[in-house]
Amino acid sequence: MASGSEAAFHQEASPAAIAALRQDMPALANKVYFNYGGQGPLPRASLQAMVESWQRIQALGPFAKPVVPYVEGLILSLRQALADLCGVAPQRLAFTENVTSGCVLPLWGLPWRPGDQLLISHGEHPGVVATCHEIARREQLQVKTFSVQDCSKAAQVLERLDAALQPRTCLVVLSHLLWTTGAAMPIAAVGRRLREHVNQPWLLVDGAQSAGAVPLQEAVAAADLYAFTGHKWFCGPEGLGAMVLSQRLLEVGTPTMIGWRGLAPGTDQPLRLHGDARRYEIATSCYPLMAGLLQSLHSLATVGDSQQRLAIIREQSGHLWHGLRQLPGVETLLPEPPPGGLVSFRVKDHSPQQVVNFLTERGLVLRSFEKPTACVRACCHVTTELVEGQRLVAEIASLVTN
Amino acid sequence: MASGSEAAFHQEASPAAIAALRQDMPALANKVYFNYGGQGPLPRASLQAMVESWQRIQALGPFAKPVVPYVEGLILSLRQALADLCGVAPQRLAFTENVTSGCVLPLWGLPWRPGDQLLISHGEHPGVVATCHEIARREQLQVKTFSVQDCSKAAQVLERLDAALQPRTCLVVLSHLLWTTGAAMPIAAVGRRLREHVNQPWLLVDGAQSAGAVPLQEAVAAADLYAFTGHKWFCGPEGLGAMVLSQRLLEVGTPTMIGWRGLAPGTDQPLRLHGDARRYEIATSCYPLMAGLLQSLHSLATVGDSQQRLAIIREQSGHLWHGLRQLPGVETLLPEPPPGGLVSFRVKDHSPQQVVNFLTERGLVLRSFEKPTACVRACCHVTTELVEGQRLVAEIASLVTN
Repeated sequence: MASGSEAAFHQEASPAAIAALRQDMPALANKVYFNYGGQGPLPRASLQAMVESWQRIQALGPFAKPVVPYVEGLILSLRQALADLCGVAPQRLAFTENVTSGCVLPLWGLPWRPGDQLLISHGEHPGVVATCHEIARREQLQVKTFSVQDCSKAAQVLERLDAALQPRTCLVVLSHLLWTTGAAMPIAAVGRRLREHVNQPWLLVDGAQSAGAVPLQEAVAAADLYAFTGHKWFCGPEGLGAMVLSQRLLEVGTPTMIGWRGLAPGTDQPLRLHGDARRYEIATSCYPLMAGLLQSLHSLATVGDSQQRLAIIREQSGHLWHGLRQLPGVETLLPEPPPGGLVSFRVKDHSPQQVVNFLTERGLVLRSFEKPTACVRACCHVTTELVEGQRLVAEIASLVTN
Repeated sequence: MASGSEAAFHQEASPAAIAALRQDMPALANKVYFNYGGQGPLPRASLQAMVESWQRIQALGPFAKPVVPYVEGLILSLRQALADLCGVAPQRLAFTENVTSGCVLPLWGLPWRPGDQLLISHGEHPGVVATCHEIARREQLQVKTFSVQDCSKAAQVLERLDAALQPRTCLVVLSHLLWTTGAAMPIAAVGRRLREHVNQPWLLVDGAQSAGAVPLQEAVAAADLYAFTGHKWFCGPEGLGAMVLSQRLLEVGTPTMIGWRGLAPGTDQPLRLHGDARRYEIATSCYPLMAGLLQSLHSLATVGDSQQRLAIIREQSGHLWHGLRQLPGVETLLPEPPPGGLVSFRVKDHSPQQVVNFLTERGLVLRSFEKPTACVRACCHVTTELVEGQRLVAEIASLVTN
């Protein structure tokens, strides 16, 4: 997992950087926080960057020529930074308000044929699932699901996929990391399978739980559409995400929500769009949020790069996973230490909601799921401390022994 | 226009409130600002409200149970406040990221029939026009435009509409106030015309230049879809707007972008949506922006209600209109004092861009249009001072006499 130099980095460089980052996150000061997968804590520096961005826009404009280079610079910097993390050219990345919008917006502009099949993993987010059903209703498509919630190995997922794929499958929807169990899906291998498929299905990957937690390049390269948000593992402000589109999708797909940001300037044609992914951006967004997310990326980078941060995350989630497994009556959903920061588990004789309520009273913040997989989910990020995991294990121990 | 009590209000209550509001807008401190229709200045109090909202979300969560009542309260308060301004029940109002999204998103879920006609005024925003063309392309509809740019009287607009309407017209797109000329469109009368039409066309009203500047109730009541943004005449943060949907549209239309905010909780059906306008809201937005917009509404209310504010706005835009008209070589686009805050004009022998450049060098911030109507646009809001209008007239005078 970690190379020698990374291990050295962990021992020497990280603790101080992690402590500084924690110190800069007010959300972590008054609770034991395990909900990074719901929303990441916003650093003070990121809020300050947003305030300064607003102040600058007001000083320059707000709607005046000097604002343009400032806002364009902001957009360019963030687009490049996120594209770098995804390993793609910035021309393939478009900003969205949230991960659901990124997942579903481009789907509406793809050429579906009545009778085609949308194949959705059983572990996908309800919003994405709902929109797929609505697309199917309007375009006369079939929706089929395939179960991956109980898979922890790539081979299992691929077997399930192979069993579910049909000649008319036109889209596969699969999260990079399942939001309930935290299992990593073998996106690169899935992409290879789909490229061999007679119908060349599109591959939509929901990166809600992966972006900011694990390296993204390999999965992004395999996907036709990889969507994520800045406000979870990237610890940016809510209301800003992005999607990466494959060259194929950019060529074949057409935008559905069109606004001035998607239109190429200086033409009288009503539908003259930007040639790159900007055609999927709509109209005015909250640009100061971009300054906030940029600062969050910088703050996270002080701890290490994506690989280094994942090693730290896995150290924490692994400790927690081991600790929980040792408790009688506690079952972890994954049979191996988690590939990312999500540690999901069940406690015998207690519903997930009961466990979360018990922990909430004790100042520990987690969330529960009833479906598709009933469980409690604890998220560990680079800012998670060993004592926090130990505290959680001790609380669960006290719950099961009472 | 103004009743006796409103006139009294202007003389006594407003000047101090207006001065206080101006003082709270850093954007107005270092320039002569006439671009309210592009973006309104953000009050310091609104930025402070956003900062406090972020701090509160971080203190309570960010993703934890105590956050829910806080954020829900914020959403509820703003939905009620905007619904009140629109004269509708809050169940008919949905939040959007910007006015373009509000205009075009619901259109995708309406039941079009091949051969139907979309009828768009020639004064609409390119984003709305582009999406209508894309809908027409996919659904095999016709797009026709009707010219209103040269109309200042309701009767003229209705004549043009009557001449353009066809039995298969299924949608009419018309701004409440044209963004170029500033003319007010007779939305209520247009709505009555369409209700008498054999095909019962939908009426989409773009409220980008009206919301925050003129009372909205009458036009909203006539529209099937009335969309607006908080960051122009309401002086809120960028990235937050809303749309009001008619009962008919709520019953007949279906949402296209579906996310957790649109889904009713506690059901296993993938497409169980909220019964009200929330079904058109998608997923995580930037909630602190709601605190900012709420504060901006409060700040504007210190100056007066919608009617009172319009009287103040029209006093300023009327002065400016009269001043410009007295200059030789200057032509105002409207033959009468403006119905709102927009004062558009042309200067003989100078392109709109040349005029704007000349003014920019002198610290006056305006914008130009090349199409659909070549002009310079000056926007007056309640915070516009008489001396600012006089300054603009004097600068234009110096331009035309040189």
